Order: sequence, then C-alpha cells, then structure tokens
Amino acid sequence: MYKLVLMRHGESQWNLENRFTGWTDVDLTDLGREQARQAGQLLKEQGYEFDVAFTSVLKRAIRTLWIALDAMDAMYLPIHNNWRLNERHYGALQGLNKAETAAQYGDEQVLIWRRAYAIAPNPLEKDDPRHPKFDPRYARLSPEQLPATECLKDTVARVLPFWNETIAPSIRAGRRVLVAAHGNSLRALIKHLDNVSEEDIVHLNIPTGQPLVYELDQDLRPIRHYYLGDPAEIEAAMAAVAAQGKAKKG
Amino acid sequence: MYKLVLMRHGESQWNLENRFTGWTDVDLTDLGREQARQAGQLLKEQGYEFDVAFTSVLKRAIRTLWIALDAMDAMYLPIHNNWRLNERHYGALQGLNKAETAAQYGDEQVLIWRRAYAIAPNPLEKDDPRHPKFDPRYARLSPEQLPATECLKDTVARVLPFWNETIAPSIRAGRRVLVAAHGNSLRALIKHLDNVSEEDIVHLNIPTGQPLVYELDQDLRPIRHYYLGDPAEIEAAMAAVAAQGKAKKG
Repeated sequence: MYKLVLMRHGESQWNLENRFTGWTDVDLTDLGREQARQAGQLLKEQGYEFDVAFTSVLKRAIRTLWIALDAMDAMYLPIHNNWRLNERHYGALQGLNKAETAAQYGDEQVLIWRRAYAIAPNPLEKDDPRHPKFDPRYARLSPEQLPATECLKDTVARVLPFWNETIAPSIRAGRRVLVAAHGNSLRALIKHLDNVSEEDIVHLNIPTGQPLVYELDQDLRPIRHYYLGDPAEIEAAMAAVAAQGKAKKG
Repeated sequence: MYKLVLMRHGESQWNLENRFTGWTDVDLTDLGREQARQAGQLLKEQGYEFDVAFTSVLKRAIRTLWIALDAMDAMYLPIHNNWRLNERHYGALQGLNKAETAAQYGDEQVLIWRRAYAIAPNPLEKDDPRHPKFDPRYARLSPEQLPATECLKDTVARVLPFWNETIAPSIRAGRRVLVAAHGNSLRALIKHLDNVSEEDIVHLNIPTGQPLVYELDQDLRPIRHYYLGDPAEIEAAMAAVAAQGKAKKG
C-alpha cells in the first residue's frame, strides 16, 4: 500500500482581498505562512517522511512547501516544480475583485464561469501583459501549451499528464510523495483518483494548508483518504472555503 | 561565453559559536539570512537571471539559496540538491569548538588538519550517532560513498564528478547556473576551474554570501572571475574569513 499526501497552499494575499488569482504569482499572507508551518509540524508529529515533493511554479504553493519542509526538518528533500500543477488559469478575470467582476460581466455569468466544468472565462488578449508568454518561467513551453484561460476541464487535461508521467511512476517506485498545489489542480488530481463526476468535482472544497492523506493500492486506486488535522478544525476550514466560494475564488 | 555564479552560504550558528561544522546540519544566523537576502538583491539589481540552481543537502546552503531566490523573485527555479556539494566532512572534530579541539588534540595537530591538503581528521566511529549512515538523506548512498572524515583532497574527489556529470553539461546546454554551497566544496570547484595548486587552494578564502561570477569560454575554461559586491566590502569579508580561519573553521 502507498501513501500520498496532498496539500493546498495556505491563505494568499488575494484570497484575503477577494480577487481572482489564477496564474498571478501572489504571495502568502502571514496566516498562510502559519498554516504552512502548522501543516509541516503536524506531518512531523505524526511521523510522516517523504522522498520527493512536487509543486507548481507559483510562489504561494512553493512557499507553503518550503515552510512545511522547514518545519519537518526536511529542507533537503528533492522538489520538482511544474507548471502543470499551477492553479486554474482564470483568463481575463485575473486580478479583478468580486465587485469589479460582477459590474463587468454580471453575477450570473461569473457563477457560470466558477461552477461550470467546461466553460472558461474570456481569455487574456495575446498582448495582455498578464499573458504567461511574457513570463520567463514559461519560456520553454510551446504556444499551444500556454493557456490564456481555462475551465476546470482544461486544468484536469493538463494536470493528468504530470500525474501519469511523473508523480504516479514515482509512487510506484516506492517514493513517499508530497504534493503542494492549488484548489483546482488538486481537484483535478482528486477527480482522477476518486473518479468524481464533473458535476460533483466543482463543489469539492479543499481547505488551505491541511495535509490530505490518500492510501492507494498497488494499482494506485484509493483505499481511503483523510485529513490529518483535528476534524472539527477541518470541518470549519472546509465551511470557510465553501462560504468564500460564494463571494470570491482563489 | 558562459557565466556561472557561485555563492557560499551566509553565516551559520556554528560559525558564530566557533565550532567545527562539516556535515552537521546547522542553520543560518539572522546575519546569515540577511547576507543571503542582500546577495539575491544584488543579483537582481545587476540583471542576473538563472535557469537552474544547484546546492547541497545541508540547510545553511539551501536556506541561503531559498532566501536569495525569493529576493530575486525566482522561487520557481529548479533546484537540484546533492550531497556532493556538502561542506568537507570534519570527522571526529564535528561539534567541537576550538578550545575543546585544542585541549583534545593540540593546536599543532588541528592546524595540520585544517591546512594540509591530504590529511584528514580522525574519522567518526561507525556507531557514532553523528555518522551520516544514520541520516535518512544519505540512505541511497553506498557505504563506500559515505565519508566518516575528509581532507580537502577527498572533498575535491567527490565534488568533481558532480561538476563533470551534472553542472558542466548543464552550462554547456546553455542553462544559466547558480551554485549555493560551502567554503570547501566551492574551493574544490575553484581548484578545478582555475587549476589552483594543492598548496594554494587551502589558503583561498571565500567570503560568505557574496556572489562570485565566473566567465567561462566554450570549453568551460575561466576567462575571468569577480565578486559582484562592493570591492571594499568583499575585501573586509575575505579578511574576516581569513582571521576566522585562524581561530575557527566552518
């Protein structure tokens, strides 16, 4: 049996400011850093050890991982950064807050973009300075790979190759794997692992900075999964994310 | 022409306490963190960008790199950790301060261990809890690879394969490389790059937290090298390291 630990990054500045983040490289708040520290502390206390970690190329996930590894006294762990674990790209909504978005597109349209599995927000224009082609960290990707917007279906489509070609083989090779990522890239992984429907996956709320353990059989099918933290605390955190979902989106 | 940037970690707690560190996983002091931040700031101001970073599996080098990358807004950079970039293993001296060492072995013997290229301190016993075989980060190494002590010659012998097989090919492939390492693993690299004699290399003092730029020709032969920082500051830092060498060793 294998164990895989997933962790969503701690609270970011734009979570706090109620703005659509997506691929914008926003940092953690002080609370977010503390959540990451507590996650690492919890993993250490419960005897978790890892051989390799995977994360995105966005600093809120990387910093969450760094802080957690520091708390576990495992800073030497090999870390693989990959854009495929990035948050869902939010297209033209990136940077807008809820009031701005509602004023520009209407509440109903925004709800569709947030909740429909296969409908993406308007894309960034090709010359928009927010377009990922202007960012050196994506310089090696082909134009076809670089999203200007994504629905959750698109996110799933680009996360899964990284699972299949990199993370899953690493688990099968006996490596103990920690993944620090984002609400929607983790939804993509969980949709695949638990075979969640398109309708249900958009309603799955993953609390920030809470280690989520998957026990997998030899074919990497989930046996069970559970959060490591205090159940009452997890429930409150999931409720907070769900409520946040009504007013804003990470 | 290629550019390679080398950086010795910032001040560590045991630099401050005047103890032999070697492979002991001692953290940076507040000053060490500030040195790392300034190094990253300096690299950013002077327009340096990197494609990949290499460091050891010891937290004082890793944290120096993390802080510098954070200051450069390049936390997404791929980082490769390898034990071959670790500090020289100081054998049975690890953890002792200068007074303890002198009392136990005599000043003259300690000077020989510090200054002779090919004479190593007494090794750690096989059952010594400080022996690297008890540390999970070295679990994949063979017993022959794991040092219980090293002279600088030994350090050179295990650093060079990593240069030849990993760092040098990366530079030849056009990657812009940053190496964050230790006084003696950097001496090993510099001995090789500049073809420094065994007599001279032990007297080369590398200041902590100061980016050192090597310009290399197409065969990776050095054209010239220079520190990025303020020359007066560098000179003071090198003098401080040299003076420290008289009383203690990192």
